[in-house]
Amino acid sequence: SFLSDSNGGGVLQGSASECVLVAMLAAREQALNRLYEENPSEHKVSHLPKLVAYCSKEAHSCVEKAAIISLVTLRKLEPDSNSSLRGEILSKAIEEDEAKGLVPFMVLGILGSTGSCSFDNLEEIGRVAKKHGCWLHVDAAYAGSAFICPEFQHLLNGIELVDSFNTNPNKWLLMNFDCSCLWVKDRKKIIKSFSVNALYLESEYEGMVHDYRHWGIPLSRRFRSLKMWFVFRCYGISGLQQYIRNHVRLAQLFESHVRKDERFEVLNDVRMGLVCFRLKGKGDKLTAHLLANINHS
Amino acid sequence: SFLSDSNGGGVLQGSASECVLVAMLAAREQALNRLYEENPSEHKVSHLPKLVAYCSKEAHSCVEKAAIISLVTLRKLEPDSNSSLRGEILSKAIEEDEAKGLVPFMVLGILGSTGSCSFDNLEEIGRVAKKHGCWLHVDAAYAGSAFICPEFQHLLNGIELVDSFNTNPNKWLLMNFDCSCLWVKDRKKIIKSFSVNALYLESEYEGMVHDYRHWGIPLSRRFRSLKMWFVFRCYGISGLQQYIRNHVRLAQLFESHVRKDERFEVLNDVRMGLVCFRLKGKGDKLTAHLLANINHS
Repeated sequence: SFLSDSNGGGVLQGSASECVLVAMLAAREQALNRLYEENPSEHKVSHLPKLVAYCSKEAHSCVEKAAIISLVTLRKLEPDSNSSLRGEILSKAIEEDEAKGLVPFMVLGILGSTGSCSFDNLEEIGRVAKKHGCWLHVDAAYAGSAFICPEFQHLLNGIELVDSFNTNPNKWLLMNFDCSCLWVKDRKKIIKSFSVNALYLESEYEGMVHDYRHWGIPLSRRFRSLKMWFVFRCYGISGLQQYIRNHVRLAQLFESHVRKDERFEVLNDVRMGLVCFRLKGKGDKLTAHLLANINHS
Repeated sequence: SFLSDSNGGGVLQGSASECVLVAMLAAREQALNRLYEENPSEHKVSHLPKLVAYCSKEAHSCVEKAAIISLVTLRKLEPDSNSSLRGEILSKAIEEDEAKGLVPFMVLGILGSTGSCSFDNLEEIGRVAKKHGCWLHVDAAYAGSAFICPEFQHLLNGIELVDSFNTNPNKWLLMNFDCSCLWVKDRKKIIKSFSVNALYLESEYEGMVHDYRHWGIPLSRRFRSLKMWFVFRCYGISGLQQYIRNHVRLAQLFESHVRKDERFEVLNDVRMGLVCFRLKGKGDKLTAHLLANINHS
């Protein structure tokens, strides 16, 4: 249902920050319209202070930036011991806020966090989001590329509950330019948030083709998808899978070296290319010192 | 005062739409903070429905898009017979809105409109904007490139009243990639609207260098200014001036051909590369038909 021959579709944005912002603006528009329909006597914008979005503390700071731009409240929730946001925590937070008269309108799930490459429980948070009428966006900026390998696709369980999804092929799929993919299940909701018409933008193909200027902030853009198509043609699906699997293999190799060394401990569940490690029992200060030394070397 | 060794500075954005949006978000933040300081008992966001921005009807639709995203009201004002927004019209509109209890917070001036390459009267609207405490942004997406030629710099009169300014060297200065320059007079005001900190974004150079991730929507970006530097080095100031002047000369040549042909009339004041013309006295329908024929040829 993310394909363009259904009600959905995808567009390339300039950065993951832009994808998250565009999704949040669409979610905000949907929520404000709903509140306006319920209370047509009040100014649509007057409901803004009630809107609350939710994400894990592991979420990338671009979620916070999107909330600042959108002027909505963002609640950053505590994930479980595997750094995964779970349904119960989300459910509790949403119910607390609803009891206060606030309006939960969006949940941002993370597949492959920046800090530890952790994965939110998409099925659980998806069910909670749907129950409370929240837009569910998934940020898989880094890890999304790995989903071309069947062995990682179980991390996508619950994707049918998602309204929008982003991943950056420029992070881990050999695209050598700024290229963030954003898919939505209902393109009308994105278009509604941005649509502006001007005489010099009119076209006789209006309505017959996708006008991507209504899908985000810029009105014109380079033909970036052509470069992407060439990368796909050059490597093929098996070539790209091999590239991802080799990185994962290297991470596992590095992990095994760290685990063999008594001075260090591994801190994350290594599933893709990120290995988090630190000096054992010496506190953060010495690890920070080690990091500074590595950065200077 | 737009240079980085003062309080100002510049940053490359991905599109003119993004420049205008970033400026509007900074202006909105400044206005909401001022209103919050005056009324600390009210929610900062609750003042949003009062904010009004102003531009000419000639302004690019990206201004409207920025207003939709920023959730502020935009008033599009009637320009004079040369399609130039004048101080008196702006002053009247602002005073009307202030009398209604609204809060004028931003004026968007246009140097080189998309429709007819017209120029707002920057000195006049600048004085009005300053009088009413409005942020003044100038969109010179196309025409800005021509200001490297001294003979066009008089169109910049009043620039000292401007808070932010954008131009697109990818439109008319030989940059072959998405490249929109945004300058601000007080970088702190931009930074304040976007600043988000995260552990993985910390740097030991914090405060010592410009962190451009605080100047807009994306958190990372390509080193685009290097390409720009190479274009400057390749052509030099005189090479770029020659390039601009040649385009202007060609537009004037085309204008003289149109003027010699009795069937056509020229509709704009041709100052740069845009010549607007139509069939004389035949109404818009025939001109639209001519345009369709040209587009199909």
